[in-house]
Amino acid sequence: MAVAKIRLYVEHPLGEGQSVPLTREQAHYLFGVMRLRAGDAVLLFNGQAGEWRADVVEAGKRGGLLRADEQTRPQDMPPDLWLVFAPIKKARTDFIVEKAAEMGARRICPVQTDFTNAERIRRDRLQAHAIEAAEQCGGSFVPEVAELQRLDAFLSAWPGERQLMFCDEALAGGSSALSGGLASAPTGAPWAILIGPEGGFSEAERTRLAGMPQAHAVRLGPRILRADTAAVAAMTMWQQALGDWR
Amino acid sequence: MAVAKIRLYVEHPLGEGQSVPLTREQAHYLFGVMRLRAGDAVLLFNGQAGEWRADVVEAGKRGGLLRADEQTRPQDMPPDLWLVFAPIKKARTDFIVEKAAEMGARRICPVQTDFTNAERIRRDRLQAHAIEAAEQCGGSFVPEVAELQRLDAFLSAWPGERQLMFCDEALAGGSSALSGGLASAPTGAPWAILIGPEGGFSEAERTRLAGMPQAHAVRLGPRILRADTAAVAAMTMWQQALGDWR
Repeated sequence: MAVAKIRLYVEHPLGEGQSVPLTREQAHYLFGVMRLRAGDAVLLFNGQAGEWRADVVEAGKRGGLLRADEQTRPQDMPPDLWLVFAPIKKARTDFIVEKAAEMGARRICPVQTDFTNAERIRRDRLQAHAIEAAEQCGGSFVPEVAELQRLDAFLSAWPGERQLMFCDEALAGGSSALSGGLASAPTGAPWAILIGPEGGFSEAERTRLAGMPQAHAVRLGPRILRADTAAVAAMTMWQQALGDWR
Repeated sequence: MAVAKIRLYVEHPLGEGQSVPLTREQAHYLFGVMRLRAGDAVLLFNGQAGEWRADVVEAGKRGGLLRADEQTRPQDMPPDLWLVFAPIKKARTDFIVEKAAEMGARRICPVQTDFTNAERIRRDRLQAHAIEAAEQCGGSFVPEVAELQRLDAFLSAWPGERQLMFCDEALAGGSSALSGGLASAPTGAPWAILIGPEGGFSEAERTRLAGMPQAHAVRLGPRILRADTAAVAAMTMWQQALGDWR
């Protein structure tokens, strides 16, 4: 049997003997770029049914057909962690979405804050980044990228039991140690990490966050971190303390 | 007195009343881009003398003069941590250097590994990224970017007392927890973090690293991380356990 090296996300049911037709883009990637041929194998996942080995049955320029063969990994399910962040620049926004998928966020929520100018996002493009990161990182789960929302509306609809790790650059500097907010947090609860925008939160936002019983302020060291760095650092801290890096 | 918002790295002594001439690039940035005028204030650091408030004495298109006024922060010195990594793609290499400066590495060491193709780096360009990150993150220290070296030569010259946190994607997957290598590590020792290249270490490299008494293998969660993600995650873990995030 051919060894499968390529991992591909498909929006199609997966199971033993299941036929999986390819889109034009997928066929171009597999047969044009990666030079696969009939009889070669790939690994497939759809975000729900684990990872499956599949053989190439038909390889064409504009399409093709795979047949799933055997399950190679059960479905992964990362911890119930949302990453909430304020998109600013395109490259760093792309980066944050990629990193959220690699680090095991279950949902990615872009928000508009008082000091954020982003009026819109390309949700489909960000979702494609999340898919590519999932293909790369060996997982079988793809976090969903939510529509852009106003932070105040998002907090108004906050699910009561979800805990919130709140990283604010105003907490950087000074000499205080980590707040220890995570150590005292309930285990097994759903969580979200909120990364402040590079311009910081407004006073109104800061007051509102500080008043939420679910909020746990965490300080990310003595230096001011860019939002993309803060996202990876905060997810590392959370995964180590409460998630699947324990 | 004018409020200083801009932070600028200068290669010049700093002290009370010290005159600081500007390069053409610095003058362009301060007066052309940021529209500063005589009498405005900036914050200066040179990596050794802390942060100083300075006034603009002369503002020209091709140069200018600042005068340091008072020290606003003492010199920072991050923990004695080296970040050692194998550069591959330009954008991700730039990113790793930026993140190393933000996360508080003291020295940045690019290495060639058996599976790394990078034949050369632009050391001056990478150093400029480290300076820009230091200007941004509010610190007064700039890590030095070392010349590219072969990993085997680098390990042959390894300073005996320096501990090595060794992150290998071959350790990803499976179900084992974090190795706990950091918990048992000597405190107060100099350290380095070595990030595996995206193609992984060769067997020879892995064997050599495993045989070093200073090496502490650490697993970065169940997903495979890109090298840039791994660099930020590993520095977060180290800073929390042994560095200045404690």
